[in-house]
Amino acid sequence: MLRVGLPKGSLQESTVDLFDRAGFKLSISQRSYFPGIDDPDLQLIMFRAQEISRYVEDGVIDIGITGYDWIKENDSNVHQICELAYSRSTSAPARWVLAVPEESSIEKPQDLADGIICTELVRTTSRYFENLGISVKKVEFSWGATEVKARLVDAIVDITETGSSLRANNLRIIDTIMTSTTRLIANNQSWNDPAKRHKMEDLALLLQGAMAAREKVGLKMNVPRESLDQILAMLPAERSPTVSPLADSKWVAVEVIVEESVERDLVPKLIRAGVTGIISYPLNKVIA
Amino acid sequence: MLRVGLPKGSLQESTVDLFDRAGFKLSISQRSYFPGIDDPDLQLIMFRAQEISRYVEDGVIDIGITGYDWIKENDSNVHQICELAYSRSTSAPARWVLAVPEESSIEKPQDLADGIICTELVRTTSRYFENLGISVKKVEFSWGATEVKARLVDAIVDITETGSSLRANNLRIIDTIMTSTTRLIANNQSWNDPAKRHKMEDLALLLQGAMAAREKVGLKMNVPRESLDQILAMLPAERSPTVSPLADSKWVAVEVIVEESVERDLVPKLIRAGVTGIISYPLNKVIA
Amino acid sequence: MLRVGLPKGSLQESTVDLFDRAGFKLSISQRSYFPGIDDPDLQLIMFRAQEISRYVEDGVIDIGITGYDWIKENDSNVHQICELAYSRSTSAPARWVLAVPEESSIEKPQDLADGIICTELVRTTSRYFENLGISVKKVEFSWGATEVKARLVDAIVDITETGSSLRANNLRIIDTIMTSTTRLIANNQSWNDPAKRHKMEDLALLLQGAMAAREKVGLKMNVPRESLDQILAMLPAERSPTVSPLADSKWVAVEVIVEESVERDLVPKLIRAGVTGIISYPLNKVIA
Amino acid sequence: MLRVGLPKGSLQESTVDLFDRAGFKLSISQRSYFPGIDDPDLQLIMFRAQEISRYVEDGVIDIGITGYDWIKENDSNVHQICELAYSRSTSAPARWVLAVPEESSIEKPQDLADGIICTELVRTTSRYFENLGISVKKVEFSWGATEVKARLVDAIVDITETGSSLRANNLRIIDTIMTSTTRLIANNQSWNDPAKRHKMEDLALLLQGAMAAREKVGLKMNVPRESLDQILAMLPAERSPTVSPLADSKWVAVEVIVEESVERDLVPKLIRAGVTGIISYPLNKVIA
Amino acid sequence: MLRVGLPKGSLQESTVDLFDRAGFKLSISQRSYFPGIDDPDLQLIMFRAQEISRYVEDGVIDIGITGYDWIKENDSNVHQICELAYSRSTSAPARWVLAVPEESSIEKPQDLADGIICTELVRTTSRYFENLGISVKKVEFSWGATEVKARLVDAIVDITETGSSLRANNLRIIDTIMTSTTRLIANNQSWNDPAKRHKMEDLALLLQGAMAAREKVGLKMNVPRESLDQILAMLPAERSPTVSPLADSKWVAVEVIVEESVERDLVPKLIRAGVTGIISYPLNKVIA
Amino acid sequence: MLRVGLPKGSLQESTVDLFDRAGFKLSISQRSYFPGIDDPDLQLIMFRAQEISRYVEDGVIDIGITGYDWIKENDSNVHQICELAYSRSTSAPARWVLAVPEESSIEKPQDLADGIICTELVRTTSRYFENLGISVKKVEFSWGATEVKARLVDAIVDITETGSSLRANNLRIIDTIMTSTTRLIANNQSWNDPAKRHKMEDLALLLQGAMAAREKVGLKMNVPRESLDQILAMLPAERSPTVSPLADSKWVAVEVIVEESVERDLVPKLIRAGVTGIISYPLNKVIA
Repeated sequence: MLRVGLPKGSLQESTVDLFDRAGFKLSISQRSYFPGIDDPDLQLIMFRAQEISRYVEDGVIDIGITGYDWIKENDSNVHQICELAYSRSTSAPARWVLAVPEESSIEKPQDLADGIICTELVRTTSRYFENLGISVKKVEFSWGATEVKARLVDAIVDITETGSSLRANNLRIIDTIMTSTTRLIANNQSWNDPAKRHKMEDLALLLQGAMAAREKVGLKMNVPRESLDQILAMLPAERSPTVSPLADSKWVAVEVIVEESVERDLVPKLIRAGVTGIISYPLNKVIA
Repeated sequence: MLRVGLPKGSLQESTVDLFDRAGFKLSISQRSYFPGIDDPDLQLIMFRAQEISRYVEDGVIDIGITGYDWIKENDSNVHQICELAYSRSTSAPARWVLAVPEESSIEKPQDLADGIICTELVRTTSRYFENLGISVKKVEFSWGATEVKARLVDAIVDITETGSSLRANNLRIIDTIMTSTTRLIANNQSWNDPAKRHKMEDLALLLQGAMAAREKVGLKMNVPRESLDQILAMLPAERSPTVSPLADSKWVAVEVIVEESVERDLVPKLIRAGVTGIISYPLNKVIA
Repeated sequence: MLRVGLPKGSLQESTVDLFDRAGFKLSISQRSYFPGIDDPDLQLIMFRAQEISRYVEDGVIDIGITGYDWIKENDSNVHQICELAYSRSTSAPARWVLAVPEESSIEKPQDLADGIICTELVRTTSRYFENLGISVKKVEFSWGATEVKARLVDAIVDITETGSSLRANNLRIIDTIMTSTTRLIANNQSWNDPAKRHKMEDLALLLQGAMAAREKVGLKMNVPRESLDQILAMLPAERSPTVSPLADSKWVAVEVIVEESVERDLVPKLIRAGVTGIISYPLNKVIA
Repeated sequence: MLRVGLPKGSLQESTVDLFDRAGFKLSISQRSYFPGIDDPDLQLIMFRAQEISRYVEDGVIDIGITGYDWIKENDSNVHQICELAYSRSTSAPARWVLAVPEESSIEKPQDLADGIICTELVRTTSRYFENLGISVKKVEFSWGATEVKARLVDAIVDITETGSSLRANNLRIIDTIMTSTTRLIANNQSWNDPAKRHKMEDLALLLQGAMAAREKVGLKMNVPRESLDQILAMLPAERSPTVSPLADSKWVAVEVIVEESVERDLVPKLIRAGVTGIISYPLNKVIA
Repeated sequence: MLRVGLPKGSLQESTVDLFDRAGFKLSISQRSYFPGIDDPDLQLIMFRAQEISRYVEDGVIDIGITGYDWIKENDSNVHQICELAYSRSTSAPARWVLAVPEESSIEKPQDLADGIICTELVRTTSRYFENLGISVKKVEFSWGATEVKARLVDAIVDITETGSSLRANNLRIIDTIMTSTTRLIANNQSWNDPAKRHKMEDLALLLQGAMAAREKVGLKMNVPRESLDQILAMLPAERSPTVSPLADSKWVAVEVIVEESVERDLVPKLIRAGVTGIISYPLNKVIA
Repeated sequence: MLRVGLPKGSLQESTVDLFDRAGFKLSISQRSYFPGIDDPDLQLIMFRAQEISRYVEDGVIDIGITGYDWIKENDSNVHQICELAYSRSTSAPARWVLAVPEESSIEKPQDLADGIICTELVRTTSRYFENLGISVKKVEFSWGATEVKARLVDAIVDITETGSSLRANNLRIIDTIMTSTTRLIANNQSWNDPAKRHKMEDLALLLQGAMAAREKVGLKMNVPRESLDQILAMLPAERSPTVSPLADSKWVAVEVIVEESVERDLVPKLIRAGVTGIISYPLNKVIA
């Protein structure tokens, strides 16, 4: 039996969707921190992303999903199994940036000597300044809404994906102090237990397959036999396509798995190249 | 033209999804009890699950979706077409249980002689005690939130799927008085009308196909020809897989429909057995 | 770089879904009018459907999605690229109708001479009466909730899809003054710019493919070889099916793309004709 | 210690407000059925209005607030302490009416012989027809949204305050079968217990005082001594006004408690009669 | 019978509160545009603030509450009865300002020659530029969210109370083109009807009294007789206080109506001057 | 100009109400952390209660409202101006308790030697165990929902007002480690600035007056002159009542300020003692 820690909050819906694609049905009731799952070997528990690595390290849970940022901030001694790239709208990792009001006179980290910096990531921020040899007055812990405090203190360190919240608050980025992606992590002792490790490796395989499938589609098309080579050359080389005969022997059916961002450019080109009957269909999992 | 009764409330979203997979587009506006549907032969009406069997029996509607529990509680004389196993997170049927506070001295139904029992299922509960030859003081009707009344009366009879609400209220189960699953039911007269029956049988076929598909996925993979027999032996025997040639004659493409709960265990094993290019894709319907 | 105008409001969720199927990931935050998209060549901006054609005409945006009704009402000089039939529950276009209270003595447009008519579509309504040679007192602009004003003035001109809002307000339709469907429109200058036009045509192709896929499914089945011709004759002629051999040479695998509304009737017939192993699966795009 | 049953649902907010004016602070958390109260002698429990009289009769609670309609429907043997007229926007009692679709041919109760009537108030409705000597086919229980069923059966019996829901559904009233107001009721045994009765009488006094205050205001004004008699004659005779001297001996201060609906007409008249410095202030309680 | 038009939307809650203080009970259901009121002489109808003056002018309603801005924008010929200063947090009127992005090169209205300006207030904005003799390219109608369009066109004209939305969007104010307050307006014909006018004047009196009371409180205190003159001198001269004897003849009771913003400064001063037993109480109406 | 820190979250509505009674109008928009206020000398900023004392100590804000618990947890060196007893339903302070699952074998703090304790109040909890000379393994920080972690670790320290959340989670209290009430605190330097201190003292006076008024009402009544002494003896001695003559010299008017919890018992007794015309009215402020 594995205890699995899932992050509560904005990633929650994505997590249910991810496990769904991976083949597990989750039932999250709003009141409960213990979602149901249709696998008797797994027990799910929801935590704030910020604390998951602590509970994994303590052995309170065997495995958890959290960010690289909080693993480091908590100095948690855990085994990192793999990345799980959640974010859909952008493939870039989240960045923790040092920012000041647009109108501030501060231009570089050194200008913050003796200043107050406000952040959710106190330890990481303190180390950043130590490493630069800059002595600040205080790195003050902020319970969320850090960006609104930028004009109350000297600078903030806040997370940003697209920079839109910074822009909305009229802040200027001075430096990036850390980048972070989502990780699947395990308690060290659990990872050394062969039965638990086997289960965790399978789970990682399924979740990664589910993750990969989110960006991909299956593409089927009818290709004139005479232009087959030309068409195959247009397809991404990554995975070899399946070519099947059709009733009309002048045509063959071609099927391939492609990235959605590739498909967008590929489909109009295929049409122009004489391909017909193009359909694309969604995938749950893409492995190996 | 068929009048179809659908259950309002927690199953509503699942119902839209189910009809969607079955091939019908529903449009439910929050204010209306008459959802739209893109089939001119069907007219949809929403009811509380508790009353649907009554209106089916009366002929107010031809066909409806409701629970076995309320068919029995209402003593409704209707034709049961088939089961429709809605619940996703668990395959177990719902149970109506006799429960008391954890700290109560009541240990068995007999201890409730002369007691007050509170329930939404008055008739079924009364019969249960009659059958056991136990004379209770009163079976009092409860308009929902029955579990909070357990400490006000002597016992309650309430529905439970996972037992979590009972645990949250610190209740102890004494006995199960009924198990229940979702049913598609028809008015007897409508069922005997050949045209209506034909339409209802088709609808049942499509809904059951949609239901079955929710637990299943399509699985495609590339298998080394030399290990084909070994791999086929690993696949569930239930439905025969499709084997197709590939361009590279050392490999064949295999496609099969499997339960998601099987797929979770199967995929890692297939990988270890040398299978490559595994993808799984979602299904709308699986019939026959 | 293309500036794309999307309609805010009730179509918003459909738009995200449509772009998703077309292969683009949108991220709409509730506060922002600038949704993110994973294509650096596109910049999205949300407007009210009523104003999109104005901003396309002005060149503020290059391309937009809006209704034919508002293109006409605004007298916007724009290039109409194609239709995008959003509505899922009904395939009929939206209608702008002239309506009066059920109990009104008004029976035909001519009875409205010297009357006050209330509508969101002032210009179109005025033209309608001019064309009929009817002189009304005033066509008054209504900021939404037009149907509740029907009993305050003499008549209203309001949009209706299913007529349910009119029925709920007890209104009677006198005439239809315009029908409207959703359009993809381009700024004339942008359309004449080859690079922009290429990008817009590709986008139109992908959106139309995504739109078409919403009403269709992929259908796979196992057919006894001896009845293959009979079965093929039952399938819609529109797109030719793929027929593949199966391990058991008495059977063949048939795959075809069909409308969901066709599938509903087809599947029970196929079952009765001896077809087995029917599955249907969802599609993202169907092109050509 | 008294157990007090309060109605859950639409009256909930009014109940908190009423107890607040009466001098008790309630804290209702959304999840809990046991609101807190700052009086250690009272324990509050929330029920549906429909079931309160049953639990009062059973002695599960000592006292409760519910409607006359449900006391009668449940045939509950309870002591009615007093009325508590909740409704703010109208002083008329709620009516349970027999209604049919506007277009129905049914004109009078007798036309419903052999018909199906749908209602939440099955027993009361059945008695109504029995008393009239009319034999209906069935009085079917409706779990809410009764008005939408009017076109599925022959008639409904539903509650109405202003008639707006009936109008929105295009229904026509045939007859009123019961009028109902809110009541404070006690368990008979509790009522005969002197200590409990004393507490219940005090509670009734405070709640009635709070209720009375909702419709009234305190009115203060400066009156020219010479027109004092004329002004006093304009004030409602119900409660005698307080007349106090002012520094300027030509004027007196007059204070009186009046109904808000009286105040609306009174204030402009007082102004015209030369009164100055009118203020009105809200009241918590008006007793005796 | 008067037809009264109330503004739908953000002022709605304030309107209910205002009528409540004025002595009328409103019941607004979310679905209905016809709020109930406990005065049979009034019929309420909700409109968007933008259209109310049109319907008052047309005589569709007799009286309405709307802004000066929309009366002017609509060029409505109506009788303005009085101001009704709704806004609680600030006493300043709303301003319609011409604004550009912070980074824009536009500094004065003249820089907008040949520009596109986006606004809800098309006519007023056009007149503003005409009066200045500036010829713009287009004043384009904006359906809300005007501030987000500032970077798409050359400038916007938008409403602002505190300027916070402009700041959040990084906009710079170039000029104020109109200030506006809330008005009670009447149809000219209704105003000339003596019975209707009488009712409208009374209503205006009550609403203004209610409005005035929102900013004021009643203040009572015990004052040493010897320092009475000194204390009276500290009180605002606007309304004369009531002075009453107390049992202890060394003290007198003083009561006065003051602005809340005055009370805040006054109370600490009174305490320092030896006043005791200060209480303040809320008011419903303050007239004359 | 004073910078005032207000607690975001569950106390927010109470804060607006408190400032309203104190005589200030706040406008809190959901998106903004900077509420508006109608006093140009105050600038409001919202923080989480947990961080306010840090920002007061740093001088980022001059004055703030927070709990004693977080002042201590943060070891903040600030000036405590006064208590502000927010809680309405109970007058007891909040308690931070050490709790374990009902079924745990842990009976006393000493049983937690070498255990893991989970809490939001890490420093305070660590000190508690140090003071007892108990060496625990770890005091782990919990980001909310601490009660659900009780079964994952050995014990928790969580806040409780009524104990209901603990009961709902089936937890048993071992010890109380801290009690806490709400405090108004000032930055030390600001407190030593005469102008700021004057403003803060006035603010404290008004807020305390507003707080006091929440539990009190004004009570007016008509008393037979002959029983005046008897009635006065029944009134609480705390504040002396005002006695005024009435027109009918056999009666006098008595007015007094009483606690609501006293009024509840007092009013029925007064009625029995022959007092008539009792009204009670709400208060905004009660000072001195």
